[in-house]
Amino acid sequence: MQAVDAFLQQHSERFLQELKEFLRIPSVSAVTAHQKDVRRAADWVRAQLESAGVRAELVETAGHPIVYGEWLQAPGAPTVLVYGHYDVQPPDPLNEWTTPPFEPDIRDGKIYARGATDDKGQMLTHVKSVEAWLKSGTPLPVNVKFVIEGEEEVGSDNLDRFLAARKEQLKCDVAVVSDTSQYAPGIPAITYGLRGIVACEVTLHGPRQDLHSGIFGGSIANPCTVLAGLIAQLHDEHGRVQVPGFYDDVIELLPEERKQFAALPFDEAEFLQGLGAPAPFGEAGYSTLERRWTRPTCDVNGLSGGYQGEGPKTIVPARASAKITCRLVPAQKNETIIAALEQFLRERCPAAVRFEFKTYHGCPATVCDIHSPYMTAARAAVRAGFGAEPVLIREGGSIPVVGTFKELLGVDTLLLGWGQNTDNLHSPNEHFSVEAFQSGIRASAALWAELAKRA
Amino acid sequence: MQAVDAFLQQHSERFLQELKEFLRIPSVSAVTAHQKDVRRAADWVRAQLESAGVRAELVETAGHPIVYGEWLQAPGAPTVLVYGHYDVQPPDPLNEWTTPPFEPDIRDGKIYARGATDDKGQMLTHVKSVEAWLKSGTPLPVNVKFVIEGEEEVGSDNLDRFLAARKEQLKCDVAVVSDTSQYAPGIPAITYGLRGIVACEVTLHGPRQDLHSGIFGGSIANPCTVLAGLIAQLHDEHGRVQVPGFYDDVIELLPEERKQFAALPFDEAEFLQGLGAPAPFGEAGYSTLERRWTRPTCDVNGLSGGYQGEGPKTIVPARASAKITCRLVPAQKNETIIAALEQFLRERCPAAVRFEFKTYHGCPATVCDIHSPYMTAARAAVRAGFGAEPVLIREGGSIPVVGTFKELLGVDTLLLGWGQNTDNLHSPNEHFSVEAFQSGIRASAALWAELAKRA
Repeated sequence: MQAVDAFLQQHSERFLQELKEFLRIPSVSAVTAHQKDVRRAADWVRAQLESAGVRAELVETAGHPIVYGEWLQAPGAPTVLVYGHYDVQPPDPLNEWTTPPFEPDIRDGKIYARGATDDKGQMLTHVKSVEAWLKSGTPLPVNVKFVIEGEEEVGSDNLDRFLAARKEQLKCDVAVVSDTSQYAPGIPAITYGLRGIVACEVTLHGPRQDLHSGIFGGSIANPCTVLAGLIAQLHDEHGRVQVPGFYDDVIELLPEERKQFAALPFDEAEFLQGLGAPAPFGEAGYSTLERRWTRPTCDVNGLSGGYQGEGPKTIVPARASAKITCRLVPAQKNETIIAALEQFLRERCPAAVRFEFKTYHGCPATVCDIHSPYMTAARAAVRAGFGAEPVLIREGGSIPVVGTFKELLGVDTLLLGWGQNTDNLHSPNEHFSVEAFQSGIRASAALWAELAKRA
Repeated sequence: MQAVDAFLQQHSERFLQELKEFLRIPSVSAVTAHQKDVRRAADWVRAQLESAGVRAELVETAGHPIVYGEWLQAPGAPTVLVYGHYDVQPPDPLNEWTTPPFEPDIRDGKIYARGATDDKGQMLTHVKSVEAWLKSGTPLPVNVKFVIEGEEEVGSDNLDRFLAARKEQLKCDVAVVSDTSQYAPGIPAITYGLRGIVACEVTLHGPRQDLHSGIFGGSIANPCTVLAGLIAQLHDEHGRVQVPGFYDDVIELLPEERKQFAALPFDEAEFLQGLGAPAPFGEAGYSTLERRWTRPTCDVNGLSGGYQGEGPKTIVPARASAKITCRLVPAQKNETIIAALEQFLRERCPAAVRFEFKTYHGCPATVCDIHSPYMTAARAAVRAGFGAEPVLIREGGSIPVVGTFKELLGVDTLLLGWGQNTDNLHSPNEHFSVEAFQSGIRASAALWAELAKRA
């Protein structure tokens, strides 16, 4: 490992410059106008892998391409599949960024840009650690395969088809993903459970077009009002979801899990202050960490209807819509939940408006074995990279591919997060600690050795 | 009148070309970017009055200018104040227009453009009728004053100050406004009552910025959900407003008014089909005409929160807002209603979000004397112009200046509407019948003679 470490130290500034180069590409997968930028990012990743010594290619899909790379010159050694994504969330609202989202800026030891932590910065650590092994003349002790996709932020519509088609080529012993967070600064973590997600959009159609609210108001149903009435029925006053059967399949937390989470340092007041939220809120009977990691939700992500511009406009709107996502936990079934949600809304919708329901892609919740040799190797690697014992946590977000890896390839996924919850992922001013980027590369480099030793 | 009639026939094509010229000016008062266009429209009206023989000027205000004109060469004759507006509603949604909103197009005898009926086309009839009297060599039998403003669609913020400042100059016997509708094609109408309006915007602030719904969802209040909960409480399932005291001051309709309205031809199914509304809706115990003309409302005109773009975005939004207007009827008090609405929403808003309430300008409801000599003159003038006896109706929209004229100048306003409810005012594809434009000019020309005879 000494040669590897020396290489990492020697090239640390170049690695940072390369990350900046990557972050300058506005690879927003949700927005059609960025299609070329997304491809440019894919090509950048491919070139990085090639230059590290990993044979790599762009695999075309019906949407954005997938970067696939492999280095298989350690016969008999374990094979690791690294997954990450090169696409990013839309940067809106733009006016809330201190520096532009695609002009990376380093302030107070953090690099600010859309995608800094989610997932460009984190994903790149594994490319760089492999480069360090291969370029420092030390034989890489494991085989590695890379799957870096460009549609993670829009539901990974084409990933499953790719994975299924290449099932044999992707065979491996364990998967590694860095797209989660440390527990807190100085407290690295390994995430052993994720929430799933279902997503939909409800649109209510009233009159054919916006109408004068003076001439017609009071004699015709207002889609905004009706939509509000439907959304209002989704929760009780503590945010508990009222859709029948919603909680039926939820596996309640074990007493030891609750104890373990309760032992983590957590300051409720500081948490709220950090978010700028006026008061605590959430399902009765659960702590904030439990609500975030282990309880299902039903959130409105966007609400839209009628006039959105400056000043008043006196209309009865033609339509109103809501984008809704439910976060799911083991063992809720996605199909059951989305069907129950649709039925709940549809049967409560009055005849005076027309109901339209559209679903987006989702993924199931996952939990994985915390006693496997892979997990032991990962704990050792994190210790080596960050100089601290990682805590075992769950996470509230969704990484759809983790469920697919389990189902399709039969492997667990090591969720090794180098970021922080406060990195503003999906928000304005997203950032990633430069130190975490470097520690992440060291931990990743150590992981290859630990896996070879223990697995 | 013969010379006047001859002049009208002779110049009818030119009048239509001038209307088109007027409609080409995008005088959208709500949108700052159109400021110069709004002034251009004011100047166009001033020039039209001058060329008709009416001394006219632009009066500067803190906002858009007011066009004032007067012709006072009929000593001893009644003085009529004509009010109208040269500003228009925003044209959005643009993609629903068949031809562009500011490129007037005549199809099937109708002229299509934003402002065609509201109020450029209707207002211009009075300018043209005065021109016909003054240019045909027939002494105009009344004195006329014109007040044509540019802020009617944004609450007429500066009109009251102008009217108060010029109270003496504006002294008159009756006011005339053409900014309402006929009852139906072939059934001209005089409107004797209008609804008032109060307008506000409610914004709920949650976290400082949009948050990742996976990481934070379930542990923090969602402003969209909370807003929906508040809006949902505003009405019962028939649209009856639940704000305490909302109906306390409402003067119920007289039995003869209900009878009169019930006698008007009205096809409920055709009405709904015309609007494209799936089913009837409204306050129990009232007919559709009563709901539109004589019952107060509380309508959401715009709903906004979180992500509004293409595809899904998994966030808990930082804020959500609703634009709300209440249509009021005699003798509801604007201050009482807006205060009750704010209190209703504020006291139901949970502490987990911050409540913000902003009001816009409003106006009271009005009714006027249907037995006055002015009204008798107006009925005769409409008969002369349209060849049919007008029905007496109310209207659901608001014309703020009518209340001001009553209060400040002590005069009733004759609401002589030449348009149709189906003219799509405030909606895409606004239009105005070319024939109604011409009949309106004839009725206006007759009005000056009838008023001189009876008042």
